[in-house]
Parts: sequence; structure tokens; C-alpha cells
Amino acid sequence: MAKRLFLLTLTLIIGCVFVVRLGTGDEAASGGKTLVRNASMVLTMDPALGTLEDADVLIDGDRVAAVGKGLPASGARVIDGKGKIVMPGFVDLHTHLWQSLIRGCATDKELNGWLGGCVLPLQGSPVSGADAYAGARLSTLDAIATGVTTVTDWSHAFNPDFARGNLKALTDSKQRFVFAFMAGTAEWIAPEVRRVKKDVIDRNPLAHLQIGTHPAGWNVAGVEASERLAKELDVPLNVHLLESKADPATDQMGVLRRAGALRPGLLANHVVHATDAELDELAAHDVRIAHNPLSNMRLASGVAKVPDMKARNIKVGIGLDGGTNDTSDMFNDMRAAVGLQRAQSADPSRYPTPADVLRMATLGGAEALGLEHEIGSLTPGKKADLQVINAQALNFAPKVDWAAQLVFNTQPVNVQWVFVNGVALKKDGKVVGDTERVIADAQAAADRVRKYLGR
Amino acid sequence: MAKRLFLLTLTLIIGCVFVVRLGTGDEAASGGKTLVRNASMVLTMDPALGTLEDADVLIDGDRVAAVGKGLPASGARVIDGKGKIVMPGFVDLHTHLWQSLIRGCATDKELNGWLGGCVLPLQGSPVSGADAYAGARLSTLDAIATGVTTVTDWSHAFNPDFARGNLKALTDSKQRFVFAFMAGTAEWIAPEVRRVKKDVIDRNPLAHLQIGTHPAGWNVAGVEASERLAKELDVPLNVHLLESKADPATDQMGVLRRAGALRPGLLANHVVHATDAELDELAAHDVRIAHNPLSNMRLASGVAKVPDMKARNIKVGIGLDGGTNDTSDMFNDMRAAVGLQRAQSADPSRYPTPADVLRMATLGGAEALGLEHEIGSLTPGKKADLQVINAQALNFAPKVDWAAQLVFNTQPVNVQWVFVNGVALKKDGKVVGDTERVIADAQAAADRVRKYLGR
Repeated sequence: MAKRLFLLTLTLIIGCVFVVRLGTGDEAASGGKTLVRNASMVLTMDPALGTLEDADVLIDGDRVAAVGKGLPASGARVIDGKGKIVMPGFVDLHTHLWQSLIRGCATDKELNGWLGGCVLPLQGSPVSGADAYAGARLSTLDAIATGVTTVTDWSHAFNPDFARGNLKALTDSKQRFVFAFMAGTAEWIAPEVRRVKKDVIDRNPLAHLQIGTHPAGWNVAGVEASERLAKELDVPLNVHLLESKADPATDQMGVLRRAGALRPGLLANHVVHATDAELDELAAHDVRIAHNPLSNMRLASGVAKVPDMKARNIKVGIGLDGGTNDTSDMFNDMRAAVGLQRAQSADPSRYPTPADVLRMATLGGAEALGLEHEIGSLTPGKKADLQVINAQALNFAPKVDWAAQLVFNTQPVNVQWVFVNGVALKKDGKVVGDTERVIADAQAAADRVRKYLGR
Repeated sequence: MAKRLFLLTLTLIIGCVFVVRLGTGDEAASGGKTLVRNASMVLTMDPALGTLEDADVLIDGDRVAAVGKGLPASGARVIDGKGKIVMPGFVDLHTHLWQSLIRGCATDKELNGWLGGCVLPLQGSPVSGADAYAGARLSTLDAIATGVTTVTDWSHAFNPDFARGNLKALTDSKQRFVFAFMAGTAEWIAPEVRRVKKDVIDRNPLAHLQIGTHPAGWNVAGVEASERLAKELDVPLNVHLLESKADPATDQMGVLRRAGALRPGLLANHVVHATDAELDELAAHDVRIAHNPLSNMRLASGVAKVPDMKARNIKVGIGLDGGTNDTSDMFNDMRAAVGLQRAQSADPSRYPTPADVLRMATLGGAEALGLEHEIGSLTPGKKADLQVINAQALNFAPKVDWAAQLVFNTQPVNVQWVFVNGVALKKDGKVVGDTERVIADAQAAADRVRKYLGR
């Protein structure tokens, strides 16, 4: 009797340990094989594969190994996909990660008022690498929470230390990232950017580099220096273009044109106030566009002519635009992209539709970055950057048209798992990381930064 | 030794039980006294009280007993307010709760296409009280999750059973509610509405009645019958007005005018396509307006002239508009109200500002319903309808300008506690209720309803 009781107890303990291990899914953090089994919907974003019901997604190492029914589970950690949607992770095509430190700043101002109150005073202020790290660290965890697997971070790089702290936070995030290093004519910049490329970017398979600059009549030398550096390092230029109604007067297009910067791969953010001829010119040079509807609403920038961009086959993705927007919800960003066009035109067929915006937020963003062969769809062989969304939630159920519901109903809290390069960064609804510590550090940094803003 | 061990164990057990009781806060569900202590911010929405820092809010029974510093905790359950914001619960001024059953339906259509595909076929179909209950039950829990304490539910009342199921879900929700019963010329309606008022509404201190109808040239008799019933029962009429660009051609204003329905208390939803003269007329008759920006974006209805309403001192609140919108996020609704005006006008000072929209979503909605003496602000003596929001979250921290961050940064997951009439309906981040069961029931009902839609 005692022996049977002992065996029963032993079995129960082993069982419990097993259940706990399955439940926490710690194994999935370290790569290896992961099988999402019987996902109620797999939105591959790959036209050849389409959307599957009751199907599996197998991750092997850093890759999507297979998508289909009844895939072998041998050696894989299993996530139950019942009631869940698997789709590619989001590409946030434009943001400024450090700007979580200025959330809620000057919400009564348009772009230039906001820049003057919350950003430009930091140029020349002793903001530090620790400040940049604290802000960017918070933002990366927050981006992961809403399903972002690739982030394009336009870093103001106020000083070398600030840029390094910003970049370290991106590296530590384990997200795929594009670091757009704001260059210009300051002497320290070009050597530092070359060093960063060699020592940090080229050693990290998740990392990519761009050169950030601001085209304007008062910054011709800065744009020319940036374009030279971009060509030397063979990386794209990344600019804010025709964002506010005041921008057309600053000859942004002329400055880019004369610097020879209008060329394939140039990433232009916003492009709200472009004429038809300017859109033609951008299209002719295969310039890509980051559309940031939530930012354009917050800063009163206007409504970008996204249908006109589509008509010209311009590659367009969407971005959250960090502190310029405050709202770290990619689902909200998608429905704003749809709804803003609809409210303006009173035409529900206007581009983008829900299906269009799902593509913009995934494969479209990948194309804009030239990374469409690596990410953006659940195509076997591509990198395992994906998210698992719980559709059995009060704000999402019942199932009527899940693809549309992804755009209109979903909230970041519904994102249960996020994988980047096969590594789980959000597990069973919880972002991996010491969030309490990260929040406290960001508060301390925000309190320091506020002093330099004089607010 | 054994005795000391026993005492130690007993102490530990008692301690654990105590901690668990504090943690779950079950006591707060049953009314009594609750003290939110040292809330980092108390946004009272009462001009005389303003916004307080590091202050307490005391709930006693169904009322706000006091707001201030160092309030006595004796006999009260205590919620730690550090890092949290206390504010009035939201008034969702316009929704259709049953429409969670058609989430994601016809997302490619404007209002009339969507109505034709997803709503009108149910008129005359054997949709049941169980269907209505399942949809409305899901929606009420979902509304509570996003901080809604008062909901105005325009019920299509397809048949008596459907209306009863709808109403029962509202009653079971323990939310404060206004039930807008769609009336008209059908013989069963007037007696049923009278019975509902006497047997259900008048017996429930949380319940209010309105009469819903649709003004249009083809529904003059329906509007007249509804207005007669509203006058007989001394309750407001509730209509959809000038929502789509097709509506002005249906003589909505003329029908209301001739029926004598343009009078104080009339609640008009949307009012997107009103002329200046029509807004003048609505203002002159103290007609109230529910603005539903997320719905207007989803259905391509247009941009309501909210600044022009404000200029005429029209009472305006905001609504989620249920399945007409799909997005059950009041914070998203608030920032859409701000951002839509800004994107259209390129003017960041345009009404509503973040402060304005916080008022619209609380006290403004209460005024539109004539309930401003009961709810809408944390004024001592008013009903204890309030929410506690956790600002120490990845999507919200750090603290820069919390009032603005409530509009731009907040997600429903940040709402930790929701009290209606002093009773906790969301506790420590969890909605009270069997959510799994509710979701399963809604799915079953959605599957039944879909058959009648022929989709």
C-alpha cells in the first residue's frame, strides 16, 4: 500500500513538472523546434499558400520549416493552436524607440511645435546612452507585446553615447531591426557609423543599417554627407518627407533630387503632402514609403494619399512612429490606415482594405526594406518571425471573418506568442523580460530628459 | 518543538489566506466600503475638484463618499492606488450590444451595404432571445473590460423574445444602462414596451428606457408611433440621424420635425451629414448627439462636424457602436475622435482636445442622457461608477502627461478595476464572469444567426 502510494505520488509529481514545463514553454525561448499544432487559422501572407484552417506551423531553428496539416511533432515543443491565429510578425516600418521617454509630450501641437517642445532641445543636451537605452528598451518590449518582430528605428543619435545606448537596447531586444543612424556633417559621425556597421551590425544577423537624414533647404550639406555615407556603406537612406503642411516650402524633393538620393531603396516616411508629380517621381525611382496614420492623426499632419501610392505600385508599409504617436498598438495602426481613407472619401472600397493593410503591415513592410526574401510571410525557408493570436477573447470572438477581425477587433493583449528568428520573445501572453525594472528605468530617464526640455 | 512548529505553520496558513483575500479583492464585489488609497492621479472630471495627485477615493455602498487625501480606511477594503489613475467609468453613448454576433461581417461595405448584408435580413427571421442574450452578454463583459460603466443600447428588438433576451443580458451585466427599444407600428410593441418599463426598468435602479426609431420618408408612421409612445412614457427618443451620405435624401430632419420629435432629450446618433442650418435646429431644440468615430471610419460614413456641434453648445458624447465598428476599445474611440478632426483639418487645436474627449466620454455622455446629476464625475454623492487604470505598463509608462496618455497610450488591458454602483465588475484586471462560457455561447449564437443572413 505504501509502495503504491509512493508510486502514485511520484507519478503525480512528474506529471505536474511536465505540465508546468509545457505551460511555461521555456524551451521555446532557446530556438530548437516548435510546433504550433492545429491552429484554427494560419494566415501565411504567401499567395501560393494562402490561408489555411486547422493547420500546423513548424519552426526549426531560426526558420519556418513547414506549414500544413499533420506535421510531425517529434522533438518539437508543442503550442496548442486551437482557437488561435498564426500570422507573420509585424514590420514596424518607422519609429523612434527612444521617444517613449517623451510620451504625452505637447499633445496640443502639430509636428513643428511638438519637435520644438519635445525633441530639438535635446540636440546639444547631455542626454546619455543610459537615457537612450532606457527609452528604447521599454519601446522594444512594448513593440514585441503588439506582435512587432522587425522594427525600423530612426535614431536621432544626439551624441555617440546616445546612439550606442539606443543600439544596445535594439541588440538586447532580440528583435530583427533596422537602425537608421542620423548622420550629417558633424565630424564624429562618419567614423562612428563605420565602426557601428563593422562591430555591431555586421556581426548580428538580425541587424541592418540605414542612414537617417532630414532633407531641407537648410540641410543640403547634411543630406549630401549622409547620401555619400549611405553609398559608401551600401545601405539605404531614410528620411522624413512631406510630413507636415509646412514641409513643401522647405524644398525637400529638390534637395534629395540634387543629392542623387532619389534612388531604389530610399525609405521616405509619411509623404502626406506630395503632389501627383512628386508621387510619380518617387515611384519612378522605386522609393519606398512608411505610412504612419496614428502619428498623422496625433500631429495633425493630414491624410496621406495611400491609394495614389498604390496606383503607382510604390512599396508601402506602416509604422507606429513612437513618441510621435504614443499608441503602441499595431492593430489600431492598421484600422486607422483603413478608416482614415474611408472617413475622408466615404468610399469603403478605397485602398487599403483590411486584406491590403494586413499585407502592408507584414510583407509590404518587408518589401519596403528589401527583406521580402527573408521575412514578411510564413513561407517555408523564411525566418521564423511570427505571432500567435488568441481569437477566443471577449473583444474578438465569435468567429465570423477572422481576417477582418484581425484588423477591426484585435488588441495587443490578444497576442500570445511572438517569435523572432525562432526565439520566443512573448510567451503565453507575457513579454520576456523584467518589465518592472524596465518601466522604472524608463521613468528615471524620462525625469532626467524632461529637465533638458525645460518643461 | 512540535508545538512551536504547529504555531508557525498555523501563522503561515492564516497569513497566506489573508494575502490571498487581499489579492483577489472579492469583498469589493459586494458593495460596502472600498478605499482606493494613494492613487497617483484622480481625474475627477468635476471642475470644482479638478485633478488630484496621491489622493484617495472612498466608495460607500453605491456612492462616491469622498475624494481627498488621507481618507479613513476603517471598515473599507483597500486597493493600492500607487502608479494608478482613478477616473469616472465611460459612458458608451451609442451601441448595439447584440451585434457582437456579426463582428467582422461585410467589412467591405458602407452603412447601407452592411445593413443589407448583416442586419436587415434578421428582421422577420426567427432570431431568439437566446441569440440576443448570448451576443449582448459577450458585449457587456467586453464593455466592462474597457471601462464602460453606462451603456446606451439601441436594440433592434426583432421580436419580443429577442428584446427580452437582450434586456436580460443588460440586467445580468450589473452595468448602468439605457435600453433604447426599437418601436414602430407593429401591434405587439407598445404593450410590450409598457410592460418592460413597469416590470423591468422601473424596478432596477440601474436601468433607463428610451424609444428607438428610424426617421425616414418611408417610416413616418413608425416615427409618429414611437414619438407618441416616448411622450406617453416620458422617456427620450433615440434615432440614427444623417449617418451616411445617402441619408439626407430620406428627409430625416423633416420627418422628425413634423412628428414633433425635435425636443430636449432626443438622442441623435452620428449626425455626420448635417448642414449648418440643421445643426442650428438641433441645437435650438437641445437635441443631444452621440459621436461614433470608429464606426464612421469602418463604415466610410465620413467625419462628423464635432467642432461645429461644440460651437453650438450641443451636448455630445461618444459611442462604440458595437458591430457597426467592431472595436471595443474606448481609448481607441477617444483618440479617433481627436485624430480624425486633426487629420482632416491639419489643425491640432481643433475640438476635441484630449481633455475635451475625456469629458465627452464621461460627463459629456452623462449630460446627453440627462444623468449628469448621478454619474459622469467623481463628485461625492454621485453613484460610484469608476475605473482604476494601471499606468505602470509597457504601453503607458513613463509618466509625462497622464491625462494626455489616457487618450493616446491606454489599452483596455490597463483597466484594472471597474465599479458600477459601488460593485466591482472588473477586479484586478479580470472581468467578473464565466468568460469561456460566454464566448462559447456567443459563437453558437453567431453560427445560428449566420444562417439567416444567408452568408
